Amino acid sequence: MKLWDKGFSIDQQIEKFTVGNDREIDMHIAKYDVQASLAHAIMLESIGIISADELKDLKRGLNELAADIENGTFVIEASFEDVHSKIEWELTNKLGEVGKKIHTARSRNDQVLVALQLYYKENLSVINDKTKTLFDTLLGLAETHKQSLLPGYTHLQVAMPSSFGLWFSAYAELLIDDVYMLNAVSKVVDQNPLGSAAGYGSSFPIDRELTTKELKFATLKYNVVAAQLGRGKSERSIASALGGLCNTMSRFAMDVCLYMSQNFNFITFPDELTTGSSIMPHKKNPDVFELIRGKCNKIQALHTEMVMITNNLPTGYHRDFQLLKENIINAFEDVKDILDIFNYSIQQVIVKDIDLNDEKYQYLFTVDSINNLVVEGMSFREAYQKIGGQVQEGTYKPDLGKQHSHVGSIHNLSLDKIAEKYPKQ
Amino acid sequence: MKLWDKGFSIDQQIEKFTVGNDREIDMHIAKYDVQASLAHAIMLESIGIISADELKDLKRGLNELAADIENGTFVIEASFEDVHSKIEWELTNKLGEVGKKIHTARSRNDQVLVALQLYYKENLSVINDKTKTLFDTLLGLAETHKQSLLPGYTHLQVAMPSSFGLWFSAYAELLIDDVYMLNAVSKVVDQNPLGSAAGYGSSFPIDRELTTKELKFATLKYNVVAAQLGRGKSERSIASALGGLCNTMSRFAMDVCLYMSQNFNFITFPDELTTGSSIMPHKKNPDVFELIRGKCNKIQALHTEMVMITNNLPTGYHRDFQLLKENIINAFEDVKDILDIFNYSIQQVIVKDIDLNDEKYQYLFTVDSINNLVVEGMSFREAYQKIGGQVQEGTYKPDLGKQHSHVGSIHNLSLDKIAEKYPKQ
Amino acid sequence: MKLWDKGFSIDQQIEKFTVGNDREIDMHIAKYDVQASLAHAIMLESIGIISADELKDLKRGLNELAADIENGTFVIEASFEDVHSKIEWELTNKLGEVGKKIHTARSRNDQVLVALQLYYKENLSVINDKTKTLFDTLLGLAETHKQSLLPGYTHLQVAMPSSFGLWFSAYAELLIDDVYMLNAVSKVVDQNPLGSAAGYGSSFPIDRELTTKELKFATLKYNVVAAQLGRGKSERSIASALGGLCNTMSRFAMDVCLYMSQNFNFITFPDELTTGSSIMPHKKNPDVFELIRGKCNKIQALHTEMVMITNNLPTGYHRDFQLLKENIINAFEDVKDILDIFNYSIQQVIVKDIDLNDEKYQYLFTVDSINNLVVEGMSFREAYQKIGGQVQEGTYKPDLGKQHSHVGSIHNLSLDKIAEKYPKQ
Amino acid sequence: MKLWDKGFSIDQQIEKFTVGNDREIDMHIAKYDVQASLAHAIMLESIGIISADELKDLKRGLNELAADIENGTFVIEASFEDVHSKIEWELTNKLGEVGKKIHTARSRNDQVLVALQLYYKENLSVINDKTKTLFDTLLGLAETHKQSLLPGYTHLQVAMPSSFGLWFSAYAELLIDDVYMLNAVSKVVDQNPLGSAAGYGSSFPIDRELTTKELKFATLKYNVVAAQLGRGKSERSIASALGGLCNTMSRFAMDVCLYMSQNFNFITFPDELTTGSSIMPHKKNPDVFELIRGKCNKIQALHTEMVMITNNLPTGYHRDFQLLKENIINAFEDVKDILDIFNYSIQQVIVKDIDLNDEKYQYLFTVDSINNLVVEGMSFREAYQKIGGQVQEGTYKPDLGKQHSHVGSIHNLSLDKIAEKYPKQ
Repeated sequence: MKLWDKGFSIDQQIEKFTVGNDREIDMHIAKYDVQASLAHAIMLESIGIISADELKDLKRGLNELAADIENGTFVIEASFEDVHSKIEWELTNKLGEVGKKIHTARSRNDQVLVALQLYYKENLSVINDKTKTLFDTLLGLAETHKQSLLPGYTHLQVAMPSSFGLWFSAYAELLIDDVYMLNAVSKVVDQNPLGSAAGYGSSFPIDRELTTKELKFATLKYNVVAAQLGRGKSERSIASALGGLCNTMSRFAMDVCLYMSQNFNFITFPDELTTGSSIMPHKKNPDVFELIRGKCNKIQALHTEMVMITNNLPTGYHRDFQLLKENIINAFEDVKDILDIFNYSIQQVIVKDIDLNDEKYQYLFTVDSINNLVVEGMSFREAYQKIGGQVQEGTYKPDLGKQHSHVGSIHNLSLDKIAEKYPKQ
Repeated sequence: MKLWDKGFSIDQQIEKFTVGNDREIDMHIAKYDVQASLAHAIMLESIGIISADELKDLKRGLNELAADIENGTFVIEASFEDVHSKIEWELTNKLGEVGKKIHTARSRNDQVLVALQLYYKENLSVINDKTKTLFDTLLGLAETHKQSLLPGYTHLQVAMPSSFGLWFSAYAELLIDDVYMLNAVSKVVDQNPLGSAAGYGSSFPIDRELTTKELKFATLKYNVVAAQLGRGKSERSIASALGGLCNTMSRFAMDVCLYMSQNFNFITFPDELTTGSSIMPHKKNPDVFELIRGKCNKIQALHTEMVMITNNLPTGYHRDFQLLKENIINAFEDVKDILDIFNYSIQQVIVKDIDLNDEKYQYLFTVDSINNLVVEGMSFREAYQKIGGQVQEGTYKPDLGKQHSHVGSIHNLSLDKIAEKYPKQ
Repeated sequence: MKLWDKGFSIDQQIEKFTVGNDREIDMHIAKYDVQASLAHAIMLESIGIISADELKDLKRGLNELAADIENGTFVIEASFEDVHSKIEWELTNKLGEVGKKIHTARSRNDQVLVALQLYYKENLSVINDKTKTLFDTLLGLAETHKQSLLPGYTHLQVAMPSSFGLWFSAYAELLIDDVYMLNAVSKVVDQNPLGSAAGYGSSFPIDRELTTKELKFATLKYNVVAAQLGRGKSERSIASALGGLCNTMSRFAMDVCLYMSQNFNFITFPDELTTGSSIMPHKKNPDVFELIRGKCNKIQALHTEMVMITNNLPTGYHRDFQLLKENIINAFEDVKDILDIFNYSIQQVIVKDIDLNDEKYQYLFTVDSINNLVVEGMSFREAYQKIGGQVQEGTYKPDLGKQHSHVGSIHNLSLDKIAEKYPKQ
Repeated sequence: MKLWDKGFSIDQQIEKFTVGNDREIDMHIAKYDVQASLAHAIMLESIGIISADELKDLKRGLNELAADIENGTFVIEASFEDVHSKIEWELTNKLGEVGKKIHTARSRNDQVLVALQLYYKENLSVINDKTKTLFDTLLGLAETHKQSLLPGYTHLQVAMPSSFGLWFSAYAELLIDDVYMLNAVSKVVDQNPLGSAAGYGSSFPIDRELTTKELKFATLKYNVVAAQLGRGKSERSIASALGGLCNTMSRFAMDVCLYMSQNFNFITFPDELTTGSSIMPHKKNPDVFELIRGKCNKIQALHTEMVMITNNLPTGYHRDFQLLKENIINAFEDVKDILDIFNYSIQQVIVKDIDLNDEKYQYLFTVDSINNLVVEGMSFREAYQKIGGQVQEGTYKPDLGKQHSHVGSIHNLSLDKIAEKYPKQ
């Protein structure tokens, strides 16, 4: 048997296998386990399972732990399999028997579920705020650069005039769609699961409305079986909503990388935001935006993982659920970073002067020219032939001054209306 | 060159390749192309591009087409590449030049986009209704079977008492989470894209607020570039929201198949809903639920397809977008069928009498028994030892009469509160 | 109940739901069901279950069906749920009781499984051939255009000299990796599953080696349970291998679309292979390559579907497996088309003359210039400063004549060695 | 700007963002970077870029590093962004200028690519060995338990007799399919990419055949552009092949969890391999197998991530590729652990005596009984009626002694033939 080769006993290997990297991941939910434990203790006192004095002790103990977590002095040593056993040990160590009593009428499943949901809820809110910041930044850039024209492409072929104003505000408006989904998923997680115990409720007369109120959840997941079935289901919805936001950022980052290419040369960034090469002095690589793109694409793939882990599992808790934690929490942490970096970096964008008289852009305005004639009364067919003839003879002169007047077009970006659409959290 | 081997010319092969099965798929959006064309015509008249008489003609022509579509007499012949060219031809054939004039200030991209979005919007609403029907059915079943106990499992091991009431209403409550997501995605598609033309707007002074009103969209996708960037993005959100609903149904179907197994024998269905075997007279196979499960799992995979087709494509229309249509429309049609069949079938469920005195369920009530003693004042440790001792000695007697009182538990299903939570569409 | 609204009875709706579009899909496997039935009949005669005369009748009946299928006169009417019931009916209709006797010692599962596997095997071979054709085409193009330089990019930034020779042959060499995977998956399906019956074998003394030989399978899937467990597992391997091939083609198509953009202008195609615009006379859209890219990306997503349908299902047949057929067969048919169209189209490519003296490409050769000096004995640091200084002063002159000599580089493409590596099927 | 809130400067935040957790991940490839550097140095000396003495120094320096890595004393401090810069610094620190000279004619891209490929190659081989060990274990268990019958299920319904011998060896035979794919992907990575430099080769006269030989690669990735295009492509093939192996193990683990349920009660494990419950003394939870299943399902999802990160990116290096490393290396490490744990655990399986006379299994043998009569000459119809009648009257007596004789069936497992099929690595 190979297992002992590394000096491990099989038991150690199995323990390592089952614990995984829970200790590391759980640092993100420590704060929420304390919050939920406090709410549970208050409820236990209210139904007479623990005394007022015991509650007082528990509050003190939990508040001390909360402070340690806040200060960064909280550590989950290797002797604990997860944050929950660590906190239990600390309370018992500090307070004696009452540290164990707090586990009355709840189970480990309960604790993990409620702590995760509190983490999800708070972090969705943080992401919502950061998205709003990015939205404002993009609208601001659209306003600043609304006069700067940009070739518009279809099929990657030069097609019709666009503008930096259109480009920046397009991505801003897409963020609104992402916020619709983020808000929906916030509702999904804003339901108190505490009290489901092992997934079938408790025979203790627990007061789930009280913990709901203490934890500031909007409502309960009433059905205790539904609470457990939410494992994987919440995560796939979150993965999809974060993925939607990442879809917007990933596609924007693709544009950035392309537009920085010498063959487009539409934008650039200060040197601090690009990466050079030790042997090619001319290189200004858009590493930051490539990593935004790549990390966003990785997060878009997370939905598949969340579904595959839980799919086709019958009702009831399965240990597989433990594996959902790692990458969903990593995704939250990454999305917050990406939004910060994106928002910071895009503000440094340098919009280049694009010479639309360049030969390759010469036909950018033909549709406008044809439309001009149609508006003046010429039939489309005749107008098309006239402009087409000018193109053939080399006498075509684009009308760069043509104004597009309808809402959402180059000269009427309707930024205020887009801003108005932004949904409340 | 192998291409001619089948008697095809290469041109035919390329045409077949580019057209794909658009004709078949487009039958689903024909109705919406007519609606959008009507709104566009009304708008063109309002800004003086066509005359009142021309509008009258167009209305007549479009209404005739709408009737053909409604009656099932509308056909897209092989000579047309899609529904849009078919409708254009019909209008021109009926009305002459004005049939072409309707294309002023819009493009094919425009037409496809708005027709799809109308299709999505209407069908999301239909799915929402059918989901509500299923929700009511499940709550009804929970009420009917609330007295019937069911073993609850964790890790697929017999764990704690559950009930059919809990089981049915758990899935009902999960549907609420799905509706949150469906409602969000309804908002995503309830934005008028018409007027984006090829993706950069039009130099005609089109009135996009008017078409928005005519088409009953809640708002506009203002930015014309954002409208095109919505391709793939709307579809991935839809795929995720439909996938969420399917996740609930798939997992329920898994339970059904398992609970019908002779080894569980918790439920069965009338013969009409099961499939026999020509050689095994005892077989009652749950094919309907297996197909619900399988089709739901297929739809859960659609998110990946939608992302992969559009990911990393720079701003602007690409022909790849055409490929999004097929499977997203198939998914809508399938989900409607699945909801109908599921709702019909589950109403026929026959709940079996489960003998909870069977040896394999003997420990189902130990936790309740321990809790009883704790509530009576014994310490958990002592109570655990006492019940544990009874188990050892074979004297343990489960307390089947124990009531679970908290909200969402076996004896307090809180069905009314779950019903109240159901979100407005 | 809404189900009757369309004039359907619920039974019809359920039947439609369970049958799906099997009739359409099954046309692709009709031929293989006949082949397998023939082999099974020969085996039954060899073990005395049917007589020599009965075998003669069955051979005649099956050969007639094979001819109908070949001639395109074989039709699966709406009264049959799939190809297998159609063929059974035909045989019984033609031959009487012996038409039923052919089902001795096999089951429907058996039939579907072996027919699919024969389809997979033959079509993998066809795809292998078509891949070789494309490989040869790309190597030919590399040879033809080996002198034409192309800017090489990293991070989408102009980096180092490349060439059309390198570009074409890079994708050729990647196809070799795809063929490794295709060949492996060919082995996976080249194992006779016939005889697994419903998944647990038969108590008849069937001769599985004989059917293996008759059907020209390389070996058997011996274990009858393994045969059924192969459902979904074969399909996910196929999806992955086809997806790998599509990954190569998709990325090549992306390059084509980008290189056709006016901003790169490296290649173009004859008008027949591009799509124009009714309003923009200058447009030459690469629709064919966009559809290659999109269809390939869709096929890359199939792996997820195949896994999601079958994942976490316990041992034994489940009706869900029926749903694997549709998209895997569609993928096979699509890949064959894509390979044909790609191979035909890429031969028409027009390689443009790229002016590497253009300002945007000016630093393409700096690394070569530095290396030149290093080879002549200067230290890298000194060489870097010298060339850097020339760049600063505007006196830098790229050495366009520099030969790259190592294997696999611009001037030593090693096409013969790449050709040698191409694996046997 | 929020970024400074945590006391980070924006530059630190951006650096953290771009470096990610490379330092941690790179520990796995340190060994291979040293190997590749050694081969590169030998090659540089052979073409006269460095002297024999310089090579001697480099060999010494690299061997010391190799020893540090082997002994676990090698550390990548926070001041280095990855393993490659750490090793470069160490060499320069130890050896002076020659430590830099080793970078002549190669680039960072080169180093990462070759180190990863060496890691992949070696670890695929380790996984292949561990798979063989598991294969042998399963065949051994099949032999041991070949007499123990097991109900066979279709649609999760009791169907036909199976056996533990069939069950264990079914999964063994499936592993063969996985090894076909693993062997193919081993070929994909067994091609030396070194010499592609930044992706377009080098103007130095490097000898790529020599490094190929030194590094024991079977062949070269000749084309230098193909070498870079392999990024993402190799990883998706690996993800798929590892995913295939995981598919087999995941489905087996599902069976294990189901068969351990009290409702099946077919197998169990010693207490050390199951997890108890603090409040339910009867619980023996199969956590190890649930985690095998969950981790395997997670790895099956990796294919999507690998495709999404690289899809639709044009030719040439992009920084996104950096993100491929983390989860593919994690997957390798996990698969090795899973194989060890699975192999260890399954050997402890306790096969229970299943009472096939239990009422729920009573029809398990009807097909055999009917077949018996058919073999004796009765028509199928008559035999079916006779047995059916017995079932009705309650006089049916199953023939538990019936032997299944064909290859791959209960009484002829053909384990030796399955063993013979196992492919060479």
